[in-house]
Amino acid sequence: MSKKAVVLLSGGLDSATCLAIAKSEGFKCYALSFDYGQRHAVELESARKVAAAAGVEKHVVIKIDLTLWGGSALTSDEISVPAAGSAEGIPVTYVPARNTIFLSFAAAWAEVLGAKDIFIGVNSVDYSGYPDCRPQFIKAFRDCINLGTKACDENWSFEIHTPIQYDNKAQIIKKGLALGVDYSLTHSCYNPDESGHPCGKCDSCVLRQKGFAEAGI
Amino acid sequence: MSKKAVVLLSGGLDSATCLAIAKSEGFKCYALSFDYGQRHAVELESARKVAAAAGVEKHVVIKIDLTLWGGSALTSDEISVPAAGSAEGIPVTYVPARNTIFLSFAAAWAEVLGAKDIFIGVNSVDYSGYPDCRPQFIKAFRDCINLGTKACDENWSFEIHTPIQYDNKAQIIKKGLALGVDYSLTHSCYNPDESGHPCGKCDSCVLRQKGFAEAGI
Repeated sequence: MSKKAVVLLSGGLDSATCLAIAKSEGFKCYALSFDYGQRHAVELESARKVAAAAGVEKHVVIKIDLTLWGGSALTSDEISVPAAGSAEGIPVTYVPARNTIFLSFAAAWAEVLGAKDIFIGVNSVDYSGYPDCRPQFIKAFRDCINLGTKACDENWSFEIHTPIQYDNKAQIIKKGLALGVDYSLTHSCYNPDESGHPCGKCDSCVLRQKGFAEAGI
Repeated sequence: MSKKAVVLLSGGLDSATCLAIAKSEGFKCYALSFDYGQRHAVELESARKVAAAAGVEKHVVIKIDLTLWGGSALTSDEISVPAAGSAEGIPVTYVPARNTIFLSFAAAWAEVLGAKDIFIGVNSVDYSGYPDCRPQFIKAFRDCINLGTKACDENWSFEIHTPIQYDNKAQIIKKGLALGVDYSLTHSCYNPDESGHPCGKCDSCVLRQKGFAEAGI
C-alpha cells in the first residue's frame, strides 16, 4: 500500500512540479489549494486542471479571506504588483505568514488522513526574498507540528518535503518535463488581466519566461 | 503609545481572561475568533460580547471550514462529544492542528498590524491532553514565525503570551474576576443544545462548574 501525502498546489509551475515529484516517489497525493482572496485567483482553475491531470486522490480548495487585513500586493488593491526586479529585500508580493497558514492546514489534513508526508514547492533560488520559503523556516515548522499534533504523543513525525528547494526555474522545468508535467495547464502571473492572461512584467512572469528560455523550451 | 497585541478569543472563559490580562498589561487589543464549523458555534456570540465588553480595537471573525476533513468530535457529526473524564490520552475533542492554524492567522494579522505580541489562553493543567496547548509547542511555534515572517529580516521577534498556562480553572476565574471579567458573557460547552444551553456533562462544562465551585462563586 502506498503512503499518503498532502501536496500544496497553487496552480503555478513550482507546485505542479512538486506534485509530479511526489507522485513519482510513489505517494498517493491529496492536493490542497487556497482561495485566499489572491489577485490571481485564476490560478485555482489551473490548480484544478493540474490536480485532475495528475490523478490525485482528492483535491480540496480551502476558502480563507486574507484580504481582511491585506498587507500584500496579492491581497490588497492598495498595493500594486511591481515590475520584475524592482524589489529590495522582502518583495511586496510577500503575503504575511501565508506559508505558515497553508502548512498548518496541510498538517491538519495530513493528521486526519494518517499521512506523515507534506510536499511544498518552496524555492530559495528565485524567491529568496520570501522568508517563508527558506529551509530554516520549513525545518522550524516541521518541529512545531511534530510537537503540536498527535505525532508528539504517538511517537511518529511529520516530514516536509521541499524537492525543488535549491533548483532554479530551468532545473524545475526540466524535472517536471521529465515527469510529464503539462506546463500549459499552469499559471504563474501575479497580476493577470480580467481574462486571466499573464501580464508578462511581474517577477513571476519574468522568472517563468526566463526558466523556459534557459531550459531550451 | 501603547503596543498592539493580537488576542485569540474563542468566547470561552480562558480566552476572555487572557484578553483581560492583555488589556491590564497595557496592550491595545485586536481580537481574533474563528468560525471553523465547530459544534458549539454559539461561542462566537459570546466572543462578540466579550470583545465588545473589553473594548477591543477591532474584532475579526475568520471563517474556515474544518469540517471538510473533520477528525474531531467538534468538527464531525460522526464523532460524539464524550462525557467528562472518559478520555485517555488525547481527547476526541482535540481538533487536528487547530491552534497551529489559529496562531498562523494571528501571526499574519500581527505582522500586518505591526504587532509583535500574540496572546493565547492555552492551559496545560486542565487540558494537558491537547498537544497544541503545551508550552513546548507554543515555543516551537514562536520560533517558526520568527523565521517565516518579516521578523527574520527586520531583526525583531514575536512573543507569544500564555498568561494562564499553568493556572487551574479556579485560579483563572479569580484572575479574571479581579480584572472585571463578566463570565456570564462566556460560553464553554462543547455540545450545547439548539438554543445554545450547555449540556452540563462534557469536559468543558464539568471543568467550568468545578472551577467556579473551587473559586467560591
